[in-house]
Amino acid sequence: MNIVVVGTIAFDDVVTDHGTVTDIPGGSTLYFSAAASLFAPVSIVGVLGDDFPPEELQFLKQRGVNTDCLEIIKGGRTFRWGGEYETDMNIRRTTNLELNVFKDFNPVLDERSRKSEYVFLGNINPDLQLNVLRQVESPRFVGADTIECYIQDERDSLIEVLKRVNLLMVNDEEARLITGECNIITATKALLNFGPEYVVVKKGEHGSILAAENELFVVPAYPVEKVIDPTGAGDSFAGGTMGYIAKVNAINLQTIKSAVVYGGIVASYTVEDFSVNRLKNLSLAEIEERLTHFRSMTAF
Amino acid sequence: MNIVVVGTIAFDDVVTDHGTVTDIPGGSTLYFSAAASLFAPVSIVGVLGDDFPPEELQFLKQRGVNTDCLEIIKGGRTFRWGGEYETDMNIRRTTNLELNVFKDFNPVLDERSRKSEYVFLGNINPDLQLNVLRQVESPRFVGADTIECYIQDERDSLIEVLKRVNLLMVNDEEARLITGECNIITATKALLNFGPEYVVVKKGEHGSILAAENELFVVPAYPVEKVIDPTGAGDSFAGGTMGYIAKVNAINLQTIKSAVVYGGIVASYTVEDFSVNRLKNLSLAEIEERLTHFRSMTAF
Repeated sequence: MNIVVVGTIAFDDVVTDHGTVTDIPGGSTLYFSAAASLFAPVSIVGVLGDDFPPEELQFLKQRGVNTDCLEIIKGGRTFRWGGEYETDMNIRRTTNLELNVFKDFNPVLDERSRKSEYVFLGNINPDLQLNVLRQVESPRFVGADTIECYIQDERDSLIEVLKRVNLLMVNDEEARLITGECNIITATKALLNFGPEYVVVKKGEHGSILAAENELFVVPAYPVEKVIDPTGAGDSFAGGTMGYIAKVNAINLQTIKSAVVYGGIVASYTVEDFSVNRLKNLSLAEIEERLTHFRSMTAF
Repeated sequence: MNIVVVGTIAFDDVVTDHGTVTDIPGGSTLYFSAAASLFAPVSIVGVLGDDFPPEELQFLKQRGVNTDCLEIIKGGRTFRWGGEYETDMNIRRTTNLELNVFKDFNPVLDERSRKSEYVFLGNINPDLQLNVLRQVESPRFVGADTIECYIQDERDSLIEVLKRVNLLMVNDEEARLITGECNIITATKALLNFGPEYVVVKKGEHGSILAAENELFVVPAYPVEKVIDPTGAGDSFAGGTMGYIAKVNAINLQTIKSAVVYGGIVASYTVEDFSVNRLKNLSLAEIEERLTHFRSMTAF
């Protein structure tokens, strides 16, 4: 089933112990769709400046991703983000953030996108998330992410989004910030009270927690030694998760559990290279191979 | 099979969001033996001042723990530790440390202790760890822990200990400090090069990692919402792990994996109260009950 996703496509500047890269393709939606398109058809909704090289989206088109709802602003400058990671990759500092063409983004969905049954609202302003959601005719399963600035500055709109979401996927800090709960298990469960039937809290290298009514599922991350760049791990985790659900097209706890495991495996590949480089040539067979290994590493 | 354990028994002062307690029984060996004695017979080797109330060890004696190698120094003051936890319980600050009678500790093992097949060297000076190990006649399986100060100040002796150890159990920071590796998977595996056949790295609420030659096992922590006091979680984790191995008395990867899971379950109970209060009245049936729940929460 088709997934429509809205969010940022960006130029990133990233510094890790493994190198410094500038002007590399990034953004939550690029990572999301690079991951989700391994499992299911995807439509991307977003905005770019004409400084963004179209060939960087070629691999998505080859996977059948619909890029017709990517608005390209003539003479516009693409969204930009810069970040530096410490040797402990769990710690990062944002060094640059330029909204650029994203400031006046007015998403317009085409026919295929409007008819999508699966929707993922990437970490953009919650009013824009609602705008996109309203354009989808009969959404069957809606996933969403958010980030600190919207939790703090757009709380009312965010709460409206959460009421309409089936699966919320946020990281541990965002979960704490939304709920005011410090204990991460309590925070995960408390997010259910805002509306979502399922909540996934992403803990990076420490795995993730899935909560549903009276249910909790905890899963470690696939152990990766060669972490080149953690950027996009969470977004590709979300992409793998939503992609798997849309592929299976059966919405129940068992599917969501498996989906979260697939999401974690996809993310484990993402961090092995800068940008979406690893996702570009990732195959389902590789995902299954790592999943088999993961099962053997976690069975007791 | 009998386990002999050496380490500290202490008075602790602890501050958490759930309260302030002073002069509560603590120390690595108390937590270890409170946990291990649920599974196997234990002998404690340690030193106390006569300010430590003997009735605080009564529950261990009732479980058949041999306390004959606990030296009680007349007029001596028991080891003391104080710590404060932030709201995020992963962050703690040591506010007091008094070695007291521990400064001149000269461990002497009795007959039962010397004949133990299982040995656990708690986080004391590595020279003392070696001293105890030499007194054990035919150690079959030796576990050990250590802490930052010995990694930094007694590295040569510590390396001698590691050569003689079958199972090293340290936390993530200690693993990084010993190996100089920042990636926790790399650090865990690198510890094998120091001698141990098995290495367990404890990550608190994020679970643990077990490494053996060409093998890796990752397991989340049992999700606990009511964390009253994390003190002793790691020591009771070690106690549960060693206790289970000694009970099963079959040393292989499968046993160690199960043992680590049991260790995690025991630790999840420890943090639900101050001191060893929860461990005092913990039953194997409760451990099995939580384990069953844990299996259902982690199966995919």
